[in-house]
Amino acid sequence: MDIVSPEGFFYSVAKAGIKYQDRYDVALIYSKKPAQVAGVFTTNQIKAAPVKICMKRIRSGQAQALILNSGNANACTGQKGIEDALKITDYLAEKLNINKEHVLPLSTGVIGVHLPVEKIIKGVDELVNRLGNAQPIQVAEAIMTTDTFPKLTYRQIGEDTAVTILGICKGAGMICPNMATMLCAIVTDAKISSDLMKEALRDAVAQSFNSITVDGDMSTNDTVLMLANGESDVKIERKTTLWKQFKGALNELCIELSKMIVKDGEGATKFITVNVKGAKTAQDAKRVARAVANSLLVKTAFYGCDPNWGRVIAAVGYSGVAVKEEKIEIYINGICLFNRGFPTMRQEELKEILKEHEIEILINLNLGTGKATVFTTDLSEEYVRINSAYTT
Amino acid sequence: MDIVSPEGFFYSVAKAGIKYQDRYDVALIYSKKPAQVAGVFTTNQIKAAPVKICMKRIRSGQAQALILNSGNANACTGQKGIEDALKITDYLAEKLNINKEHVLPLSTGVIGVHLPVEKIIKGVDELVNRLGNAQPIQVAEAIMTTDTFPKLTYRQIGEDTAVTILGICKGAGMICPNMATMLCAIVTDAKISSDLMKEALRDAVAQSFNSITVDGDMSTNDTVLMLANGESDVKIERKTTLWKQFKGALNELCIELSKMIVKDGEGATKFITVNVKGAKTAQDAKRVARAVANSLLVKTAFYGCDPNWGRVIAAVGYSGVAVKEEKIEIYINGICLFNRGFPTMRQEELKEILKEHEIEILINLNLGTGKATVFTTDLSEEYVRINSAYTT
Repeated sequence: MDIVSPEGFFYSVAKAGIKYQDRYDVALIYSKKPAQVAGVFTTNQIKAAPVKICMKRIRSGQAQALILNSGNANACTGQKGIEDALKITDYLAEKLNINKEHVLPLSTGVIGVHLPVEKIIKGVDELVNRLGNAQPIQVAEAIMTTDTFPKLTYRQIGEDTAVTILGICKGAGMICPNMATMLCAIVTDAKISSDLMKEALRDAVAQSFNSITVDGDMSTNDTVLMLANGESDVKIERKTTLWKQFKGALNELCIELSKMIVKDGEGATKFITVNVKGAKTAQDAKRVARAVANSLLVKTAFYGCDPNWGRVIAAVGYSGVAVKEEKIEIYINGICLFNRGFPTMRQEELKEILKEHEIEILINLNLGTGKATVFTTDLSEEYVRINSAYTT
Repeated sequence: MDIVSPEGFFYSVAKAGIKYQDRYDVALIYSKKPAQVAGVFTTNQIKAAPVKICMKRIRSGQAQALILNSGNANACTGQKGIEDALKITDYLAEKLNINKEHVLPLSTGVIGVHLPVEKIIKGVDELVNRLGNAQPIQVAEAIMTTDTFPKLTYRQIGEDTAVTILGICKGAGMICPNMATMLCAIVTDAKISSDLMKEALRDAVAQSFNSITVDGDMSTNDTVLMLANGESDVKIERKTTLWKQFKGALNELCIELSKMIVKDGEGATKFITVNVKGAKTAQDAKRVARAVANSLLVKTAFYGCDPNWGRVIAAVGYSGVAVKEEKIEIYINGICLFNRGFPTMRQEELKEILKEHEIEILINLNLGTGKATVFTTDLSEEYVRINSAYTT
C-alpha cells in the first residue's frame, strides 16, 4: 500500500549509532507551521525523561517537530536524563529556527543508560540537512527495536479525501494492559483544536493501544502524540458529519496499528482475540479479558495448539471479577467447550482449528451486558530467547 | 535426609492409570483415629470439585483419610465432578470402615476432564490392601505432575522431639500469587484443636505458599490440608513455649516446602528472592514484590543473565503502589544499580554474579517501614516448551 502523507509534514532519518550500528535510529517529523497537539502517555509511575518533557510541553496545545530515537529509552536516568533530552531538542529547535517548546522527544530502547548526546547531536545535523528526503516508512523503520516490520497506515476523510491522517508506530515487547514500549506519532492536515483532538485521541487509544497485551508489562516510555497542522483548510468541529468521520477514521487507524503491534509481538505465532460478554459492566469484562490475555498458561497452550480451555476458565476465576461457574460459557473459534458449568468434551474438534493463526476466545459470563475485546498473542520459546538477550 | 513420620499415620500408593501409565498416581494418607483438621484453599472463584468437598467437610473439624491423585484436577467438571469424587471417597470410607465425611480428596492435573472413576476405584482397592506398605516419599512421588523431584520434609519439637510434623507437597507450574496447583498434606501427632491449628496454618501459609510465584496463574485446585491425630499425647495450647515452637516449626516446614516448589518451577534455572522494604505498608511491599516477581521481562532477563534492572523499576512503577522515582534504590545481589533517581552504571559488575543460581533483588522504596519477601524463578524456553505441550 502506498502511504499518503498529510500536507505540510516533512520527514528525515539519520544514523546516529546510539546502539545499533549502520542503521537509521533517529527520525524527525516536522510540520511547516506550528500544529495543534494532543498526547496520551504511559500510566506507569516511572516515566522516562522524554515522556515527562512531552507531558509538560503539550499543555500549550502546540508543537512543530517530533524527534524520535530507538536504542535508548532515556528512562530512569534522573535529572541528567531530562537535561540530555533538552540539549538535543534545544539544538534541534535552533537548527530549525522554531520555538524550542515546540519540539517533542520520543525514545525507545534500553532503560537506565544515559543518552549518547554527542552522537545524537551529530544525527540532528543530518536530520535537518536532509529534511524532506525521507518517506514515512523510513521513520517507521528508524524507530523499530525488536519489531520485525515497520508499522504505519493512513486514512482519508472529507470531500475529495481532503483530510489525511497518517499514523506511524513501533511496538514489539512489553506490550501491555495500558499501552507498551509503544511509540506512536499521528499527523494530520485537519484543522482541529487540540482539545477536540485530545477527546478523539483518548477514545481511539482506549479501543486500540489500551486493548492490546503481549506480556503484561507496562513501559516507562509509552507515548501517542498527534499533530494537526490545518494545511487541508478543512475545519473539524463537534457535532458535524466530519467530526464523526474524523473520529471513525482515527479509531480505525489506531486499531489497525495496534493489531500490527500484536501481530509483531515478540516471538508470536498466533493472533488471539479475547472477547468477553455478559459481564455486569464493561470494566468487569475488560478485567476478565486481560486476565485471560495475560495468562502465561493460556498463551503457552495456544502456542502448543493445545485446546486447554481449563486454563482460560482458571484465569477467569482469578481475574478478581465476581463470576458464577454455572453460568459461564467458553467458545474457541466458535466451538463451545464449557457450557454453564459443564465441559462439553469437544476439545478434539479443536486440534485442527488451533493450528490456524487467528484464534478467537469468547467468554460469556451471562451476568449482564458488559463487553470488551482484548487482542493478544501466544507465547513461544522465541519470546524468551529475544527477551533474555535484549541488552546484551 | 531420612524422613520421620508422626505416630499413627499410614501411607499407601497405587497405579490407577489416570493419565500416566505405569507410575503411582493415587495415594492414601490414613490416620488410625479421627484427627483434628485445618485447611487453606485457592482463592480462585473457579474451585475444583475436590476443593469444594474439602471446604465443606473440614467444617466439622475432623478427618481421617486423604486420597490424592495426579493426572486429573477434577476441575470445571460440574455436578458430575462432585458426584465422581464422592463415589471415590465413599467407596474408600466403606473399605476403611470410617465415617465417609472424614475422607478428603485432593486432585491435580488437567482441568475440565471427568475423572476415570472406575480406574480410581480399582486403585482404591489396592490402596486399602497395601495400606502401610508405602513411605511418605512415595506419596510425594505419586502426586508429582511436571515436578522433577518429590517434595517433603519434617520438623520435630518438644521434649525428646516428642512431636513430629511432616509435610508432603507438589508444585511446579501455575505457582502464583495465592498458592498454585499446589497440593500440600501436613500431618502431625500433636494434640491440638482444629481452631488453634487453623490459626498456625494460616500464618505459615501466608509466609510460604502465598509468597511464591512462578507464572502468576492461580490454580483451581490449591489445597493445604493439615491433620493432627494427637498420638504423641503432647498437648499444644496457646501462650505456651510449645505453641511458639509449634508455630515456628510449621512456618519453617512450609517455607522449606515452598522453596522446593519454586526451585522446581517449570523450566527454572534460577531461584530469585524479591525483597521489598521501605514501603508505606506490608501490603504495598507485597504488591510491589509480586509485580516484579511476575514480570515476564524481569524473569526472562535473569534467565539470560542480563542485568536489566530497568525492567525491575518498570515493574515497580506499574505495580499500582504509589512510589517516588527519586527515592527508590535497587540492589541485585548487594550491588546498587539505581540510587534514588540515578542509575549507578554498575551493571557490568553483575554479569558474572548473574550466572549464579541464587539471585536477590532488593528494592527500597524509602517511604516507610513496610516490607515483604516473594520467592520466584526465571523464565526459560523450557517453561514454554513444557506448558505448550501439557495436555497433548
